[in-house]
Amino acid sequence: MEVTKQDLIDCHDRIKPFIHNTPVLTSNYFNEISGAEIYFKCENFQKMGAFKMRGAINAILKLSKEQKSNGVVTHSSGNHAQAISLAAKRIGIKAYIVMPSDAPESKKDAVKGYGGELIECKPNLIAREKAANKIVNSKGATFIHPSNNLDVIIAQGTACKELIEQYGSFDHILVPVGGGGLIAGSALAAKYFGNNCSVIGAEPYEVDDAYRSLKSGFIETNITTNTIADGLKTQLGDKNFPIILEEIKTILRITEDEIIDSMKLIWQRLKIICEASCSLPLAGVLSNKQQFIGKKIGIVITGGNVDLNNIPF
Amino acid sequence: MEVTKQDLIDCHDRIKPFIHNTPVLTSNYFNEISGAEIYFKCENFQKMGAFKMRGAINAILKLSKEQKSNGVVTHSSGNHAQAISLAAKRIGIKAYIVMPSDAPESKKDAVKGYGGELIECKPNLIAREKAANKIVNSKGATFIHPSNNLDVIIAQGTACKELIEQYGSFDHILVPVGGGGLIAGSALAAKYFGNNCSVIGAEPYEVDDAYRSLKSGFIETNITTNTIADGLKTQLGDKNFPIILEEIKTILRITEDEIIDSMKLIWQRLKIICEASCSLPLAGVLSNKQQFIGKKIGIVITGGNVDLNNIPF
Repeated sequence: MEVTKQDLIDCHDRIKPFIHNTPVLTSNYFNEISGAEIYFKCENFQKMGAFKMRGAINAILKLSKEQKSNGVVTHSSGNHAQAISLAAKRIGIKAYIVMPSDAPESKKDAVKGYGGELIECKPNLIAREKAANKIVNSKGATFIHPSNNLDVIIAQGTACKELIEQYGSFDHILVPVGGGGLIAGSALAAKYFGNNCSVIGAEPYEVDDAYRSLKSGFIETNITTNTIADGLKTQLGDKNFPIILEEIKTILRITEDEIIDSMKLIWQRLKIICEASCSLPLAGVLSNKQQFIGKKIGIVITGGNVDLNNIPF
Repeated sequence: MEVTKQDLIDCHDRIKPFIHNTPVLTSNYFNEISGAEIYFKCENFQKMGAFKMRGAINAILKLSKEQKSNGVVTHSSGNHAQAISLAAKRIGIKAYIVMPSDAPESKKDAVKGYGGELIECKPNLIAREKAANKIVNSKGATFIHPSNNLDVIIAQGTACKELIEQYGSFDHILVPVGGGGLIAGSALAAKYFGNNCSVIGAEPYEVDDAYRSLKSGFIETNITTNTIADGLKTQLGDKNFPIILEEIKTILRITEDEIIDSMKLIWQRLKIICEASCSLPLAGVLSNKQQFIGKKIGIVITGGNVDLNNIPF
């Protein structure tokens, strides 16, 4: 099924009452050190603190009345779990969240705080999928994948759509790449609203499955996921990969040191709290200066749910 | 000299090209735990990271051509020093900044980074004043006080003016109280644009000179200034105190524990970096809930220049 421009417009209209049109920040400092003109779209100020709210609310709004009555389920220890919990609460339906038993208490509390029902399982992917399937079968709940779901993908693109609508054409928009939902959605937004804007991904060297997938033309997996950017450890899926393969030309790979330096710089200079994952696009611009000098660049700051007792710098 | 409504309008028009109309953030979480409706005016996103840019640029713009040619001088180890440096650079005039020799290197670097000429002196108030006077006398530079200067006071009020213009009437606007420039300016903005909005100050228990001054009717001094809110250690002056005495009814006193808790809560929930000083108004609302339930409240987040290697929680 091809996604149309109208799909993005309809999606954005559908979710607008439930999301923030998040603020955009600029900084003379970053413009000076990069030689570019950078606009930071601050999805760390989104509801529940991350762009994931967009996809979660859209996927739930698109359910049938019967599906809604049976609730939704997902397995995640990250922002998607909180987004599904809050989105379900807003619509007044049940959310079952499967989490590994060793997930941080703060994440479990956040899910429960937003009204999600927490189901703990053993800390491995098979146990998570099994627990989620059990709820699908026993409760009739609909499983909502964090990134490999077209309703989620399209909605993640609305952050870029807002950025372009508010600030005009961009040469490039840079986003971090994890499971591929954000970059695929952003690519669609750029295609339909971007006026030749190219979307560029930024990915940890340590988890460079998307970089390799783009090269090989197949979905590649990661042997290790040894990165501080814990939101980016996942891999692409069959719904988002065809879009990425069609629309994306470049994925920049970022070292762990660059991630941490860039994160600290954003905190210091933009005065915002953002996750390690958010810092990859800026790191990509700063370590590939020649490519970006004189360009107008958008960067999506994806989320701000950081454990303040465990800051990596 | 009485400040008029037109003075505030003229000032705002004068400084607009040099400042950001800073974003305003809201949070369901804070509204829920307070029972109030709170709007955070984020001056931590202001140029150089603090509202002080407003006063500095206005005071410099109001100088005569001859005064400008001789430059400006101030003594400060805080945001005012950076604001004067950057404002002078924007106007193309010389700025001399007197700083105690034991000021953090990061603050010295920031001043030099914005183009100010750093003059180091012994770390006491008498040495600072002496060094600044010497520059007034030898260079003909104009001294710009951080808070006890009407051009500075009026300009600091423009943050509240923007907040009211954008979000309508407020029941209360809360600001931290240090040298008194911000609270006096905010009181003037509320008086002329606020529609019965009352401005309330928040001050550390450990540095409660403004609280005591309001009670006694005289400018009181502090014996000790043992607070983590290092922007609030100063005392009121003869230019701002008459305005404060006339317009302000309430100054809330905040404990050190409340300051730190509130600071961490703002970082966690608003996803912004703010100084300890910024957290006092929210702490005041949360520790005086009955007073604020059901009210529409503005809070000025005053600055975000934090040493990230020395976070107090």
